[in-house]
Amino acid sequence: MKTLIVALGGNALIRFGEEGTTEEQFRNLRTPIKQIAELSKEYNIIITHGNGPQVGNLLLQQEGTSEVIKRHLGILVAETQGQIGYMIESTLDEELMHLNIDVEKLFLTVLTYVQVDPEDPAFKHPTKPIGPAYSEPRSGFVKTPKGWRRVVPSPKPIKIYQWREIKKLMQENFIVIACGGGGIPVIKEGKRLQGVEAVIDKDLASAKLGEQVEADILLIATDVEYVALNYKKSNQRNLHKLSISEAKKYLKEGQFPAGSMGPKIEAVISFIESCGERAIITSIENIKTALEGKAGTHIYK
Amino acid sequence: MKTLIVALGGNALIRFGEEGTTEEQFRNLRTPIKQIAELSKEYNIIITHGNGPQVGNLLLQQEGTSEVIKRHLGILVAETQGQIGYMIESTLDEELMHLNIDVEKLFLTVLTYVQVDPEDPAFKHPTKPIGPAYSEPRSGFVKTPKGWRRVVPSPKPIKIYQWREIKKLMQENFIVIACGGGGIPVIKEGKRLQGVEAVIDKDLASAKLGEQVEADILLIATDVEYVALNYKKSNQRNLHKLSISEAKKYLKEGQFPAGSMGPKIEAVISFIESCGERAIITSIENIKTALEGKAGTHIYK
Repeated sequence: MKTLIVALGGNALIRFGEEGTTEEQFRNLRTPIKQIAELSKEYNIIITHGNGPQVGNLLLQQEGTSEVIKRHLGILVAETQGQIGYMIESTLDEELMHLNIDVEKLFLTVLTYVQVDPEDPAFKHPTKPIGPAYSEPRSGFVKTPKGWRRVVPSPKPIKIYQWREIKKLMQENFIVIACGGGGIPVIKEGKRLQGVEAVIDKDLASAKLGEQVEADILLIATDVEYVALNYKKSNQRNLHKLSISEAKKYLKEGQFPAGSMGPKIEAVISFIESCGERAIITSIENIKTALEGKAGTHIYK
Repeated sequence: MKTLIVALGGNALIRFGEEGTTEEQFRNLRTPIKQIAELSKEYNIIITHGNGPQVGNLLLQQEGTSEVIKRHLGILVAETQGQIGYMIESTLDEELMHLNIDVEKLFLTVLTYVQVDPEDPAFKHPTKPIGPAYSEPRSGFVKTPKGWRRVVPSPKPIKIYQWREIKKLMQENFIVIACGGGGIPVIKEGKRLQGVEAVIDKDLASAKLGEQVEADILLIATDVEYVALNYKKSNQRNLHKLSISEAKKYLKEGQFPAGSMGPKIEAVISFIESCGERAIITSIENIKTALEGKAGTHIYK
């Protein structure tokens, strides 16, 4: 079976305008997870996911009381891997039961830590928005299309530590949930791993994992069905196919903004240039139809 | 290789009198994890652990701000499995490197959910203390030997959902971290798993997991080297060996209090009566020497 990585965007858990209650997140997860359960008959699957709103909430909560010791962002990312991994797993459990393949299909969430470079320029220039968006400015926050949000450093992933474990699980046909929130960012000091104050981009982490476990397909599920040129302008053009050389050209032309489509395009370029057979960018609703070739932007060498 | 479950008590992470900073927890973990790394040459190992102070802190934090949506205890337990699993894993990583067995040894944290009975009487009589202890009474808190603490229901574990995954990982010689904080408590409603407001006893969950994966040895690591009769009295007598029938007799006589040694004795009884070859109760410092027969209380059929 081919190995497929499905990278779930934030809207797989919290839709625009929602508060992000536990019930909403479980309800929203059903759309991608139902498709993934069906796809698990044909593919070896790794699910990755973001954690922007969730990790931001944990940060807000620990600032809300002086009674409890504060943890660094790496620990909070680990907490969101537990929180979201559990929600994905129990939804997957139910969907596999509906398909009567729950007994043969094993699945696991892999707590994932990811090495970053302490000299990564991102540590001096935080760019990753996390947590809720506010209509009024706050100290240390920046203006994003959704409102004022906290930004944290987002260094590039160098190495996914758990790649050997994940590769072994793929050989045993597990469905694996990994690289939650882009992975727990760590730097290496001698033999010691040290968590750092950062949040890694989950699409770049997914591409790096794909390279390390030699995955075949990377599908990035987001809130648009297609990658577009001149996005949201009168001359918007949806792309059904995109070669790596075209992708690089459009990226250089500034067609894909840094905060949204930019890292996704960078991720698919790096995945295909390393080992990937193909990559797809599409909406959460179209994961399955996109794999059948009937939706999404297909990126190839 | 025999399968050994090491159930780590709260003092593996936070020692008496400590605040529980991240640095303290990492430092404390070194004692048990160093021994476990060495034991992994001889045994297939499952590490389980508590989460009382950690889950209590998350609960306090979410009460500290109204800005963020509150999650049920099941989700918070999932968060602690991520948080503590990550700390155990990265300590284990380093200790395996010191022994030069890091390349061959694979390890994983398994997010674990555990079925409980919605009719369990524990839901009407909360007994499990979590979070910090206070010198003054607070609403909904009860007096414990450490001070006033919040108590939550602690229903009995019926089934560890991830037992098949864990069994498979054992066959592949993974070191597995599982049943963190006793597992995420869920009840089954049709095909749906529903998280509930409870914290399961981690020793009882460890015994149940041992039964389901047919483990050989259950070692409960706590803050005393031996189980004792007349504990902390002038006629205290440390037990080096204890048969199941003696254990039951002493339990009935009230030798082992409900909040501390009681559930540990119940856990080892149920483990040995189901499948276990032997069980050991000892201190965090004596995990390795106890397995060599030089420390701890050894419980047998």
